[in-house]
Amino acid sequence: MRNLLLTMRFDGSAYHGWQVQKNAVTVQETLQDAIEKALGRRENVTGCSRTDAGVHANMYCCNFRTESKKGCETVVRALNAWLPRDIGVYDCREAPEDFHARYSCVSKEYRYVIWNSPYKNPFYQNRALHLKAPLLDADMLNEEAARFVGTFDYKAFASTGHSVVDTVRTVTACRVERLGDEVIFTVRADGFLYNMVRIMAGTLLDAARGGIAGGEIRDIILSGDRGRAGATAQACGLYLNRVNYEL
Amino acid sequence: MRNLLLTMRFDGSAYHGWQVQKNAVTVQETLQDAIEKALGRRENVTGCSRTDAGVHANMYCCNFRTESKKGCETVVRALNAWLPRDIGVYDCREAPEDFHARYSCVSKEYRYVIWNSPYKNPFYQNRALHLKAPLLDADMLNEEAARFVGTFDYKAFASTGHSVVDTVRTVTACRVERLGDEVIFTVRADGFLYNMVRIMAGTLLDAARGGIAGGEIRDIILSGDRGRAGATAQACGLYLNRVNYEL
Repeated sequence: MRNLLLTMRFDGSAYHGWQVQKNAVTVQETLQDAIEKALGRRENVTGCSRTDAGVHANMYCCNFRTESKKGCETVVRALNAWLPRDIGVYDCREAPEDFHARYSCVSKEYRYVIWNSPYKNPFYQNRALHLKAPLLDADMLNEEAARFVGTFDYKAFASTGHSVVDTVRTVTACRVERLGDEVIFTVRADGFLYNMVRIMAGTLLDAARGGIAGGEIRDIILSGDRGRAGATAQACGLYLNRVNYEL
Repeated sequence: MRNLLLTMRFDGSAYHGWQVQKNAVTVQETLQDAIEKALGRRENVTGCSRTDAGVHANMYCCNFRTESKKGCETVVRALNAWLPRDIGVYDCREAPEDFHARYSCVSKEYRYVIWNSPYKNPFYQNRALHLKAPLLDADMLNEEAARFVGTFDYKAFASTGHSVVDTVRTVTACRVERLGDEVIFTVRADGFLYNMVRIMAGTLLDAARGGIAGGEIRDIILSGDRGRAGATAQACGLYLNRVNYEL
């Protein structure tokens, strides 16, 4: 039985996240539909992470087992022919038998994109948080973001209702940069808690508004108190940007 | 009577170009609808250029005369409230009485964006030409693009049916660059003929495919023969990127 690793991009605007749900269209379900049409048999796909409704991916990995004899390039072409235009597969490769898109993942990188202007940007409909004001000081936010780096219990940055027991994660890079009217928050870690990046982004926005003091981020992490971190920033600004495996 | 200069962005996917047509929705008509709702009176808007169906603008300028006493910032906010999400106004200023968005324009810059990958990109639906193959050599194309710079009769690069008599234009900058899988062709001139940028892009694509020889671009310009230039590249890759006035 082959174990195929697919890599894709998707614009999540039209989907209720990755994972199959009873009454809503998801990326996983849409991909499984395409696999059934392309390979003649429905297969269960394992994703590298759950994503929320409206979240996007520049890189998303998943794997599935198949008896199909089709070559990897043919699988990519056939899937793209059956997938809607907002989901695109760009790589397919043979993975080891025990490869698991979630458990085998060694690190991930997310981006949170903010369109920081009083005026709307038609090219960012559903693809960035539109923050009219204040004008963000990216250098200041970049200094604050650096305080997220390290190995900590991040439970102050997880939405309640998550089922994870171990909330310790290692953040290896965290930065904020400005490109014109666009402000981009990038964070890399060995794993993320439920809504972690969106709460980190919301906390940085609080810092920008003066709602929390400079340097307070480390205290909030150590407090473990979700109530002290910022609000969960809108889903539309979030992109899964990179998924890393040791293959 | 005030003469207001508006600057905006639009995603042209849903529109049949800028100019009002009898039986199709256009950007001009949509903007005039918004002006009527925002300022209480329908005004005729003059655009900086016609654009084809599906063409986008990172910067598009237009002007209109109005008796409205509303401040410029209020006009921007009111228009954005009435405009659909794919059109966004980001500046409004008082222009001299004789200002004309088209005739007062001293130069414009266009971009032609190519997604150059065997795999589709969901974020470029209708927003770039998808060229699966060949892999473009941006350095070679950049050398070819330089041959467009100068003052020439560009009638070989105008679609037939144009009504312009003087087809001499001055191209002041023309370059091709690659950013990952994206290839961007940028051209600046004092003015453009009908479909000129799309035909220039199509000709560069011919050069990439070996359909025309290196250095032949200058000969094609001098020949004045539309038949020797390339096909008109798809509208979806084209962006009006900058409009310059001496104000």
